[in-house]
Amino acid sequence: GVLGSGDFARSLAVRLVCSGFRVVVGSRNPKRKASLFPSAAEVTFQAEAVKKADVIFVAIFREHYSTLCDLADVLVGKILVDVSNNTEINHHKESNAEYLASLFPACTVVKGFNVVSAWTLQSGARDGNKQVLICSNNQEAKRIVAEIAQVMGFTPVDMGCMSSACEIENIPLRLLPAWKIPIFLALGLFLCFFTYNLIRQVIHPYIREQKNKLYKIPIEVVNTTLPCVSYVMLSLVYLPGVLAACSQLYYGTKYRRFPDWLDQWLQHRKQIGLLSFFCAALHAVYSLCLPMRRSHRYLLIETAVKQAVEKKMTIWVEEEVWRMEIYISVGIIALGLLSLLAITSLPSIANSLNWREFSFIQ
Amino acid sequence: GVLGSGDFARSLAVRLVCSGFRVVVGSRNPKRKASLFPSAAEVTFQAEAVKKADVIFVAIFREHYSTLCDLADVLVGKILVDVSNNTEINHHKESNAEYLASLFPACTVVKGFNVVSAWTLQSGARDGNKQVLICSNNQEAKRIVAEIAQVMGFTPVDMGCMSSACEIENIPLRLLPAWKIPIFLALGLFLCFFTYNLIRQVIHPYIREQKNKLYKIPIEVVNTTLPCVSYVMLSLVYLPGVLAACSQLYYGTKYRRFPDWLDQWLQHRKQIGLLSFFCAALHAVYSLCLPMRRSHRYLLIETAVKQAVEKKMTIWVEEEVWRMEIYISVGIIALGLLSLLAITSLPSIANSLNWREFSFIQ
Amino acid sequence: GVLGSGDFARSLAVRLVCSGFRVVVGSRNPKRKASLFPSAAEVTFQAEAVKKADVIFVAIFREHYSTLCDLADVLVGKILVDVSNNTEINHHKESNAEYLASLFPACTVVKGFNVVSAWTLQSGARDGNKQVLICSNNQEAKRIVAEIAQVMGFTPVDMGCMSSACEIENIPLRLLPAWKIPIFLALGLFLCFFTYNLIRQVIHPYIREQKNKLYKIPIEVVNTTLPCVSYVMLSLVYLPGVLAACSQLYYGTKYRRFPDWLDQWLQHRKQIGLLSFFCAALHAVYSLCLPMRRSHRYLLIETAVKQAVEKKMTIWVEEEVWRMEIYISVGIIALGLLSLLAITSLPSIANSLNWREFSFIQ
Repeated sequence: GVLGSGDFARSLAVRLVCSGFRVVVGSRNPKRKASLFPSAAEVTFQAEAVKKADVIFVAIFREHYSTLCDLADVLVGKILVDVSNNTEINHHKESNAEYLASLFPACTVVKGFNVVSAWTLQSGARDGNKQVLICSNNQEAKRIVAEIAQVMGFTPVDMGCMSSACEIENIPLRLLPAWKIPIFLALGLFLCFFTYNLIRQVIHPYIREQKNKLYKIPIEVVNTTLPCVSYVMLSLVYLPGVLAACSQLYYGTKYRRFPDWLDQWLQHRKQIGLLSFFCAALHAVYSLCLPMRRSHRYLLIETAVKQAVEKKMTIWVEEEVWRMEIYISVGIIALGLLSLLAITSLPSIANSLNWREFSFIQ
Repeated sequence: GVLGSGDFARSLAVRLVCSGFRVVVGSRNPKRKASLFPSAAEVTFQAEAVKKADVIFVAIFREHYSTLCDLADVLVGKILVDVSNNTEINHHKESNAEYLASLFPACTVVKGFNVVSAWTLQSGARDGNKQVLICSNNQEAKRIVAEIAQVMGFTPVDMGCMSSACEIENIPLRLLPAWKIPIFLALGLFLCFFTYNLIRQVIHPYIREQKNKLYKIPIEVVNTTLPCVSYVMLSLVYLPGVLAACSQLYYGTKYRRFPDWLDQWLQHRKQIGLLSFFCAALHAVYSLCLPMRRSHRYLLIETAVKQAVEKKMTIWVEEEVWRMEIYISVGIIALGLLSLLAITSLPSIANSLNWREFSFIQ
Repeated sequence: GVLGSGDFARSLAVRLVCSGFRVVVGSRNPKRKASLFPSAAEVTFQAEAVKKADVIFVAIFREHYSTLCDLADVLVGKILVDVSNNTEINHHKESNAEYLASLFPACTVVKGFNVVSAWTLQSGARDGNKQVLICSNNQEAKRIVAEIAQVMGFTPVDMGCMSSACEIENIPLRLLPAWKIPIFLALGLFLCFFTYNLIRQVIHPYIREQKNKLYKIPIEVVNTTLPCVSYVMLSLVYLPGVLAACSQLYYGTKYRRFPDWLDQWLQHRKQIGLLSFFCAALHAVYSLCLPMRRSHRYLLIETAVKQAVEKKMTIWVEEEVWRMEIYISVGIIALGLLSLLAITSLPSIANSLNWREFSFIQ
């Protein structure tokens, strides 16, 4: 059974019908709304629909939950699936599912399907996340809803008892919260270093010697900026651990909570590290592209022609040769090690490592 | 208990014995077959074996299920594990497990272990997929079989009720179905563009100016072909979404099913996108290799020598310099963004993103 | 309830309190120890604590389990969570959890939380592995402990019945056991080939022609060594399969167990293959860096100047051009194929492939 006639209710009915379930939709205007639903779904009055169904998807807004109170009698003993979402994180004190459960104590409430979009329901789970997070205080009801999700092509994930409902309701509202600060940090650092390198490599030679080096902006200036960002970010990954250790030594205990800013910082280390790796990898690609450029070719030919005209046969500055060999060699090794770190931060790899292995690699 | 004496039955017995279970094998010719099984397994007549075992692996072909009907009496109350596979997808109307359950209504049937190969059973789960998909209408039976799989070193995955059996039986017959069309598409596009570039870069100069440029085939022609393929594939990823939106606008509803070809296309977008990324990455590597080639070196020296002999000191075409700098720079940024998309399509990353984050990144 | 006052007990109490549970700690010196625990946790005598709690975390060493025997009466019917670890793999004949269960037959024992470090408990599950492996013979007790783990921010993983306890207790002691032999193998091969290439490319020219080629060590010698290591490792991946097939043909049966050394070898193939890929990828990056080096630039200019002075216009050795083009082209294709293999060995990708697809790709 599906209660409601909004976008989500219709998509849900479409998917349920496609997956071979018998669907009955409860609406207050069954005649007017019937055309909106797939023809295989029976559209009838709410009380009628509730009587015919064992599992009822409540696809209406939290604000209208109380309108269902008239149905309290027929709802007794039914499984209610709360599929609602909020518009703000932690908007209400208790989660929608817990609120629904408090309104209908004679029903078994299961939270689920809210992490799925109406579009995914309509078109079937194709790409992206196929998980449906489910929680309930009743094991049997949870199992039944999980099996429905399974048949619909989703992967049910047991999230435990009803107290997880709040967490599940907050998930769809999340937009990469752990990445916001690290990304702005990286952009800020990039801008600072880019300005400095621009002044040093382009503006300064232009003012002092009237040399036009504007062509260096897209690659060379960016390429000297990226490793600076990468280095600073990498040090910001290891710094908070040191600060935490100092704080523990200072207070003489491991069990004191860290100040909030340090706690936040510790939590963002993984993201900062991955951005550092991203900058390092981009730096590697930029560096490898240097010999492909026309400007590199022109400068090379110019030097060769100059030497040939002046009949200078051999210029071989041992120091410069060594500096470059060691620089490249250390760079490759560093990139190789950083990429191992990046690979171990993939969820599926991280889950196969115990904490001893994880900290060994880190 | 194991019924059957085929390859799978023997491998199953080997693994069960290795995992510390007491195994009794039921065969119609226990004396002749005993030598085939590990010595720790007891080989006896079928009825005998069934009496001694609580969980019975039915390792015989679907066609011979009916031969077990003689054992119906002793099978009452036992857990039958259907491990069979079909030779064709959706060969029979009902799955093997459901057919077995209909033959023996007094037994509890569990579908499982069919996704595991005989080789994996013999040698233990080492690499590749360690999952054993299990489904049954009986929770307790499912749990017992899951625990056996766990002890055998596999990862049991609950696939819900018996109606999933058909899906589970089709899995081992699958051979990258979602990749077939995208791969042929990519190969077709590659061939077309390769032929065009071959004619333009090698055959045309040869016919018109008698220049031998055959050396360009392995790298330069391939390297101009790959980005063309990549671009067309990338546009094919985004085109069906636009067509779908147009179709929705045209019909004025979101709930109408798309035509089959569009639906198929929408389903293959991820694979087309990944192949596009693969071509782009290969193009990047090919491009980076350009300055390593002998031919590049010879052409460079030739130009330098020519200029030196003619005493032309400086050739610096500002336009060509800029074109190359911008070309490389945009290419790196595009590759960086595409690789982010590719990383988010890894199953373990995709599962950690909600659909809002996923569509934000896309 | 938490029994014990060690590091783990304290961290556990911190996390439980943070997750909103009411915690009662049982200690033999409640007054002395109370200051160690968060103020929200009640610290009292052991018997007192046990009486007040339904789920009791036994955070004491295996050696002291017998000291709890005095509490046997009050412990009746309680759920005991064994969180202990050993200091050596398979130290005791039976796992700690099974030992605890044998001491208190009237209790329900659940193994869990031992794979989590005290640090992770204190600071919350942030990065790395968030899984808590749980096993028990009692489904209901397992479910209750799983829900506690869920609320604490971990991902409970059902590991089946008590016989898995031994495996779970060995996990935290593991330190990449499958990687040890392959890594030492790779290092050994690297050293051998490095010495050989060092003698050939640096020491030999120095002795014979007094040429100082030391600058070649960091990049060129390493770059000729890496593909040798990669090739030998790759062949070591495919060799044991051939040997296994030979052994099967020789003995005329597929069901004979392989000798231990072959079995070990077969088990390490994945790691050897990944190291081979790592070497191949490093070789690619080193090769791409070759034209960036000063030495490359100097040699190029030297040749150009020499030719210009001698007025030799064109040197174009067709054979050398072709050798390099084909070498690079084959190298890129090989790297592309190896990277596909490496990607399919990621756990989340491998789990989405059936064995037919997996062996097709391999």
